[in-house]
Amino acid sequence: MKIAILPGDGIGPEIVTEAVKVLNALGETFEMESAPVGGAGYEASGHPLPEATLKLAKDADAVLFGAVGDWKYDTLERPLRPEQAILGLRKNLGLFGNLRPAILYPELAGASTLKPEVVSGLDILIVRELTGDIYFGQPRGVRECPDGPFKGQREGFDTMRYAEGEIRRIAHVAFQAAQKRGKRLTSVDKANVLETFQFWKDIVTDVHKEYPDVALDHMYVDNAAMQLVRAPKKFDVIVTGNMFGDILSDAAAMLTGSIGMLPSASLDANNKGLYEPSHGSAPDIAGKGIANPLATILSAAMMLRYSLNKTEQADRIEAAVKQVLAQGLRTADIYEAGTTKVGTEEMGNAVVKAL
Amino acid sequence: MKIAILPGDGIGPEIVTEAVKVLNALGETFEMESAPVGGAGYEASGHPLPEATLKLAKDADAVLFGAVGDWKYDTLERPLRPEQAILGLRKNLGLFGNLRPAILYPELAGASTLKPEVVSGLDILIVRELTGDIYFGQPRGVRECPDGPFKGQREGFDTMRYAEGEIRRIAHVAFQAAQKRGKRLTSVDKANVLETFQFWKDIVTDVHKEYPDVALDHMYVDNAAMQLVRAPKKFDVIVTGNMFGDILSDAAAMLTGSIGMLPSASLDANNKGLYEPSHGSAPDIAGKGIANPLATILSAAMMLRYSLNKTEQADRIEAAVKQVLAQGLRTADIYEAGTTKVGTEEMGNAVVKAL
Ligand SMILES: CC(C)[C@H](C(=O)O)[C@@H](O)C(=O)O
Ligand SMILES: CC(C)[C@H](C(=O)O)[C@@H](O)C(=O)O
Repeated sequence: MKIAILPGDGIGPEIVTEAVKVLNALGETFEMESAPVGGAGYEASGHPLPEATLKLAKDADAVLFGAVGDWKYDTLERPLRPEQAILGLRKNLGLFGNLRPAILYPELAGASTLKPEVVSGLDILIVRELTGDIYFGQPRGVRECPDGPFKGQREGFDTMRYAEGEIRRIAHVAFQAAQKRGKRLTSVDKANVLETFQFWKDIVTDVHKEYPDVALDHMYVDNAAMQLVRAPKKFDVIVTGNMFGDILSDAAAMLTGSIGMLPSASLDANNKGLYEPSHGSAPDIAGKGIANPLATILSAAMMLRYSLNKTEQADRIEAAVKQVLAQGLRTADIYEAGTTKVGTEEMGNAVVKAL
Repeated sequence: MKIAILPGDGIGPEIVTEAVKVLNALGETFEMESAPVGGAGYEASGHPLPEATLKLAKDADAVLFGAVGDWKYDTLERPLRPEQAILGLRKNLGLFGNLRPAILYPELAGASTLKPEVVSGLDILIVRELTGDIYFGQPRGVRECPDGPFKGQREGFDTMRYAEGEIRRIAHVAFQAAQKRGKRLTSVDKANVLETFQFWKDIVTDVHKEYPDVALDHMYVDNAAMQLVRAPKKFDVIVTGNMFGDILSDAAAMLTGSIGMLPSASLDANNKGLYEPSHGSAPDIAGKGIANPLATILSAAMMLRYSLNKTEQADRIEAAVKQVLAQGLRTADIYEAGTTKVGTEEMGNAVVKAL
């Protein structure tokens, strides 16, 4: 089994190193090959997603991704900026199904800015469509405004769009995920304003007929943003489009107060996937050895579960992470008085030991 | 001075009655005229925004709006649903500048789901553009997918767009609001993905040259959703587009835990405005006399301040509201042990008395 390792920028290399260490400690044989991506890709060959990196990712059974981005690339033109690598990988690999769990580990309840009774035991899954919507819709650009009171001025524009098949396949992913959990699915839309999301709502309602055991409800995106703050534990699985999913999954992650703990998976139609922590590249702490590697280690566990069919090994890693938390080990981002502060490498070593 | 009174549906009529009572207690003469809107408009004349209602609103100096919507209209086709009234009023009256304060009154700090230290003293202002963006952009609809892997299938689509002049005028509103407050403005965009919002960012940056006394920063919408949960007090004024503003302003409102307290103003280029509570029509509690009228009463205060140039009277209402809170009076939505629970009418009467 071949895994493409794309460490990226900022803290990416440090945290990926620890995840690779954990994978190597499982007693399995994985073929792993690394390549530069993001700012590192740009430095190496003038493009955030070098051709060789894309080929490596395409040929692999799964991709383990660190993080991309650094302020020093802010002045590059958009197609050369680091985040284009992640958009390019999603599109080129057809990774339409993004799974983002927001879980609050009981030991870390204090890290949340929300009251413990509101978030303790939080366990929701956001299923975000990842290759459609206004992220990729054409036409887009800056043009002369064709009509209305601002006619003749410059205007920026983009196209939101979802085809029936795109909505169906992400709905199936979400219903099936709900079947394996609490059997409740909330589809988030803005059907009261957008044609795209009235259509979305209609198709999701239709797909629901195939999953009578799952309770489906529909919620407007503005209300969903409120309910995530008001009573997040009422959700089980949330499914939504690329743009709304971007916003809501980050809000949900932050509810836990420990975004350094949250993994993610981005899957294609055959469960090949790209796995990455939900947090970013944090260039401000890069190289200091203090970043939390657990989100990346848990991403590796998701990879074993979804793409490599090694459920038992995934379980082992997740249990090991719980164990180091129970031992009181904490990186700086989740440190509280009374626990033991450790660095990136120590945390990785502790997980290996717990295995 | 002529005020159009549009009570609407659900709790709309009850809460507007109290706000009108408060206006009448100021000792000023206002000409007020009511008309049905939303579901009530549909019942009265087959359309959520009857022509006579629109004319009344156009001819008035300001509009006091309750709330619209009820489940019983969910099965109507979209153009007839209650919320179309509010979209129609915004567009027809040119109400492009939406001001939504998110304030946490010290007495109500316990109502928030966030920890007191994270939200107590919260006072942020969201400036949301209200007549552009994907809310109104053409073309939109359901069509045959013209290209790509889903070619030939049906697809829903919408157009996001912002012309230069639209961005400039809302940026001016936001910079001027920031000048009167903490002199810090955060412009929220998604410039890393959307052409519309790269353009937005460029124009806001340009307008900033006219306001050197205001500190401007730019933040991606997903990060803004996180920072609102993580450290909301770091914000002063936030400016953003219609769609992102819809989501973020509701999230910000919910941070306070007391959305029944939050007013809003929607202004045109000449400070004519529509004023409404930030909460909805709450059909589940309509007619029970338990709804919180304070958001509507505070909306009337905003109306006096922004459209009717009666700052002193606005101050008086706001002081009266603070006084009833200090007296311990609470409607059910903000009730806590140790305070006095009152109904809609009693709360309105208490504000009148405090004047
Ligand atoms: C970096 C950016 C393009 C990306 C997105 O918007 O999808 C990120 O925010 C994410 O959620 O993975
Ligand atoms: C009712 C709906 C169309 C409206 C909007 O999306 O603008 C509402 O959510 C609001 O924020 O006033």
